[in-house]
Amino acid sequence: MDTLNFTKHISQQFNAELAHVRTQVLTMGGLVEQQLTSAILAMHQQDETLAKEVIAGDAKVNQMEVEIDEACVRMIAKRQPTASDLRFIMAIIKTISELERIGDVANKISETALEKFSQQHQPLLVSLESLGRHAISMLHDVLDAFARMDVDAAIRIYHEDKKVDKEYEAVIRQLITYMMEDPRTIPSVLTAMFCARSIERIGDRCQNICEFIFYFVKGQDFRHMSADNIDKILGHSDSDNKAE
Amino acid sequence: MDTLNFTKHISQQFNAELAHVRTQVLTMGGLVEQQLTSAILAMHQQDETLAKEVIAGDAKVNQMEVEIDEACVRMIAKRQPTASDLRFIMAIIKTISELERIGDVANKISETALEKFSQQHQPLLVSLESLGRHAISMLHDVLDAFARMDVDAAIRIYHEDKKVDKEYEAVIRQLITYMMEDPRTIPSVLTAMFCARSIERIGDRCQNICEFIFYFVKGQDFRHMSADNIDKILGHSDSDNKAE
Repeated sequence: MDTLNFTKHISQQFNAELAHVRTQVLTMGGLVEQQLTSAILAMHQQDETLAKEVIAGDAKVNQMEVEIDEACVRMIAKRQPTASDLRFIMAIIKTISELERIGDVANKISETALEKFSQQHQPLLVSLESLGRHAISMLHDVLDAFARMDVDAAIRIYHEDKKVDKEYEAVIRQLITYMMEDPRTIPSVLTAMFCARSIERIGDRCQNICEFIFYFVKGQDFRHMSADNIDKILGHSDSDNKAE
Repeated sequence: MDTLNFTKHISQQFNAELAHVRTQVLTMGGLVEQQLTSAILAMHQQDETLAKEVIAGDAKVNQMEVEIDEACVRMIAKRQPTASDLRFIMAIIKTISELERIGDVANKISETALEKFSQQHQPLLVSLESLGRHAISMLHDVLDAFARMDVDAAIRIYHEDKKVDKEYEAVIRQLITYMMEDPRTIPSVLTAMFCARSIERIGDRCQNICEFIFYFVKGQDFRHMSADNIDKILGHSDSDNKAE
């Protein structure tokens, strides 16, 4: 919380508002993480009830996005924030948009779970589950980094995406093999493939949240920068990364 | 321009800043539309030079996003806007994020163009081109609606997405048939399929921009609402839609 410097404000009320909206983001993040975890489980275990729960739960994620967004715009209008307060609010507005889209992926995976893959296609789901767990862990870590506005953790998570990408490519190669071996599986495999792609995109969305953390703490826009440049500016050496 | 009410401001300088940022968004939108048009053309005509131009041009799109975003945050800090001015700035911040992602699709399609589909796969590209032209026309129209903050036009464009979705489904069905008939084509067809999906997502992004237009003009968040509810609130009857 030190980095957030909430205590600087003369207005106790503004402090309270900032702290409240931060809590709301973390609650939303927790809900999205739970939705995603349930979705992956529902898909893997072919659990129809759980899949339906996730689909029903997406409305809550959407509602939270709208509420937090409105609270942020109200704060801007009423408190006229500048400098790090304004950056914090902007980082929140952008972060919740990424979280909402991760919520959409959970929804989509659950819809896939309802399509009921036949027993024969179970192996497809195993590789998706592993990729899914990787994405969930990245989301969990980035929410944790966001809570503490921890740049060092955010850099590590930023680099983690490369591993998700590699795992995704391996899954796609495996799925292509299935299709080529038995063309009758093509429609099912395609469904799994589009799911894999959505899961891989969660890694990119977590990277975006890392960039909002950098932006808040460092006061500079890091989007569209190469990973090398980000490391250079944030003082993270390549060996740190390799040592992980 | 009437809806924007720029002339109300006591500060001529703030008026000028708002008008400037609006022009920047339209310039960025024009560039993204051009990138997308060139990308579709490059793919269809297997034009390597054009594809490389689009890939090089993506940096300019990214740079414009960052510049406009920074200008918006500066305006918030300096001018402390409220009500419709603040909504206008928030709508811009979100719109440019959608435009940037459409720019990424152009980039991706161009990368696909460089993969050089063999003569045998030309039919794949024809169906993609038609879907692509539909998306370009939707993007063109939504930029036009944004320039005029025209809610009626935005409602029409919002409904247009259903047609893009249907066209996308037809393309996917066609591509699945190719794969099943000749499994050796699977890798190429998959590339085309992921392109089709990205193009279909452009329709969703244009819908999002429509929602930002509604938000600015009506002062209410329309995200995550059903199309029926949006029609009801904005007074657009289903028969208007059918009459198109």
